[in-house]
Order: sequence, then C-alpha cells, then structure tokens
Amino acid sequence: MNPHIAPVALEKAFRLINHGPTVLVSARHGGVDNVMAAAWACALDYAPPKLTVVLDKAARTRELVERSGQLVVQVPTVAQLDLTYQVGHRSLAEQPDKLARCGVELFGLDGHDLPFVAGCSAWLACCVVPEPHNQERYDLFIAEIVGAWADARVFRDGHWHFETADPAWRSLHYVAGGHFYAIGEAQDAGGAPAG
Amino acid sequence: MNPHIAPVALEKAFRLINHGPTVLVSARHGGVDNVMAAAWACALDYAPPKLTVVLDKAARTRELVERSGQLVVQVPTVAQLDLTYQVGHRSLAEQPDKLARCGVELFGLDGHDLPFVAGCSAWLACCVVPEPHNQERYDLFIAEIVGAWADARVFRDGHWHFETADPAWRSLHYVAGGHFYAIGEAQDAGGAPAG
Repeated sequence: MNPHIAPVALEKAFRLINHGPTVLVSARHGGVDNVMAAAWACALDYAPPKLTVVLDKAARTRELVERSGQLVVQVPTVAQLDLTYQVGHRSLAEQPDKLARCGVELFGLDGHDLPFVAGCSAWLACCVVPEPHNQERYDLFIAEIVGAWADARVFRDGHWHFETADPAWRSLHYVAGGHFYAIGEAQDAGGAPAG
Repeated sequence: MNPHIAPVALEKAFRLINHGPTVLVSARHGGVDNVMAAAWACALDYAPPKLTVVLDKAARTRELVERSGQLVVQVPTVAQLDLTYQVGHRSLAEQPDKLARCGVELFGLDGHDLPFVAGCSAWLACCVVPEPHNQERYDLFIAEIVGAWADARVFRDGHWHFETADPAWRSLHYVAGGHFYAIGEAQDAGGAPAG
C-alpha cells in the first residue's frame, strides 16, 4: 500500500469533502466491484460524521451500495481527471472491463471489505443509514463515515495543503460536459482564528 | 439593480452550484431578513431542479425558511470572503444589526418576495419541499429551484467563465477555521464533447 496514506480522525473527516469536490463512489457486493463519479456529494453532520450522496437508479454502483450497505467516497485529483470523467460515463453493464479501461486500480484497507481507488487524495469508508423514502424518491443516500484516510502529501495535521503540494493533487469540481475546475488558491477570512 | 444580472434557464440552474461552492442562504418572514453561510449545500436533481442544504437548528435563518417555505441560495465571491465568514459567525439574535455589520446589501427581484444578497455571482430562488423527518432528524432541507440568475461577467451562455473573469469573482470553498479555497483553473477531460 501507498506508505503516504494515513488515518484521519473522524471528527475531522468532514474537512476532506467540505470544499465541495467531485468524488468517486465505489462499492462491492457478491464479488463485483464498481466505481462511479458523483458531483452531488456533501457533508451532513460532524459527530458521528455523515454525508449525503445522490446515486442514480441507472448506476450499477448504486445496486452494490444498496445490497452491501457500504460504500467508499473518495476524492480524486487533477492527475485523475480522465479517470474521473470515464468512470462517470462508462457502464459496467455494457463494459465488464470498465475499471481496467478507465485505469482504475483498487486496493484494500484492513478491517474494511471495500474497494478503495488508488491515487486519490482522501478516502471515506461509509455505512448507509437506511432511509428508503429518500433513496426511492430523490436517489438521495445518507451514510455514516466510519473510517477516514488521506494521502499525507496533500492532507496532513487536519488540513489540506493544496497551496504547497504539486498541482496534480488538487481536487476536481465538475460543472458539466466534461468541464471541471481544479481547486485554487487559499483564502483566509480576516478575523478568523488561526488553525 | 445591477444591469449584469441575467436569468439562467432552470435546466442549467444546477451548474451554478455543481462545483461545490460554499453558499449564502437568505430568507424573509414577518418583516425579518437574515443571511447565513452554508458549506453544506448540494444539487439534488435536474428537472425540476432541486438542491439540498443543511440548516442547523440554532440558525435564525432556518426559522425564517421554515415559516416562509422559501429561501435564496446564492454563490458568494472572493470579493465577499469576509462577508461570507462573518454572516456565518454572527447571530441576528445577539446583533440585530448583523447584516449591516457584515456589509450585506440586499436587493429584490420581480415576482419573488425574497432577500437577494448583492455582489454574489449567482442566485437560486427556492421553495422548500417539506420533508419533516429529514428536517428534524438531519437538519436537511430539500428545496426546488424556481428561479435562477447569474452575473453575466462570470456566468453566461450556460457556463462559468472563472478563467477569464477577474479573480475576485471566483467562488469560495470552505474548509474550516476561516480557511477557504477559491475555485481554480479549468480542466477539460479528454474525450469529452465540447459545450
């Protein structure tokens, strides 16, 4: 495993997605792994940490999430721009070798029977909080974050370090039509406490 | 009114928040206007367009949203960094002149009895879709977008133009402790269709 991956305290896990990146959602069930892109993911609570993510009924990954009750939400980087776009536009049903075609490499983390996508900057292992009405009516899933990790080259000591890391580590923020923005420069509000 | 404000077609309204900016939420009820910052807002659907936003029970703005059933979700800019931080950290209950102290100027748009925050890059007028379970249990509100506008100096023809606009127009993406990032450079996925 990448020796730079370090656990993140659960009370700071929300910081990994608080700036609104597009994420990759991965899941495993019955020997099948899949990965999709999701621009519609968002923090929901601090303690226990929760998030929301919208998973379309047409997505095979959604079926794996519903059957296993688990998912990984991970933060892809500028270096993974094409991978992120491709996993959002290829279908495992039509292309059984989708993950290989998209350049996705998976790895494991002890204690979690889940497929983690290599090369991301941060990973959140999540358990679905069943809310059938939200899932059916809005495709909206609520999940509790039960494990968090980041690559210390870009997130350490509870903080993102986009401003000093290689620009290839920056998070992606999707608009539409294959058009993303990378996260940009740090902005510190006047009067804000340090840290 | 600012002559650069132009309506955005509802089918493209999601693009105004798809890249995950921190937003300002404003609401009006019984002669009271308030504005708060929310990092936890996210698109939910395309047609009709919907979004989710997390509104803490301690926020006075939430009470105005619940009573009126309406809110504005707007996208603040780097030029509004301190305003954005301050409206998220001052309380109308403790400071009746909170909006003036934070430098908030409000304006109206025809057909909407709602307080819009001047100087933002985009505005979404929304009606709450009542979901009492989500609101009580998760502080999670679902709202339908019924009107959308943007400042044509940074969003026009259905696209953000952060890369050519003045950097003061860039959206803000909050992490924690007064620390934000501005949105950064455009990244276009290979093989994506133009447009």
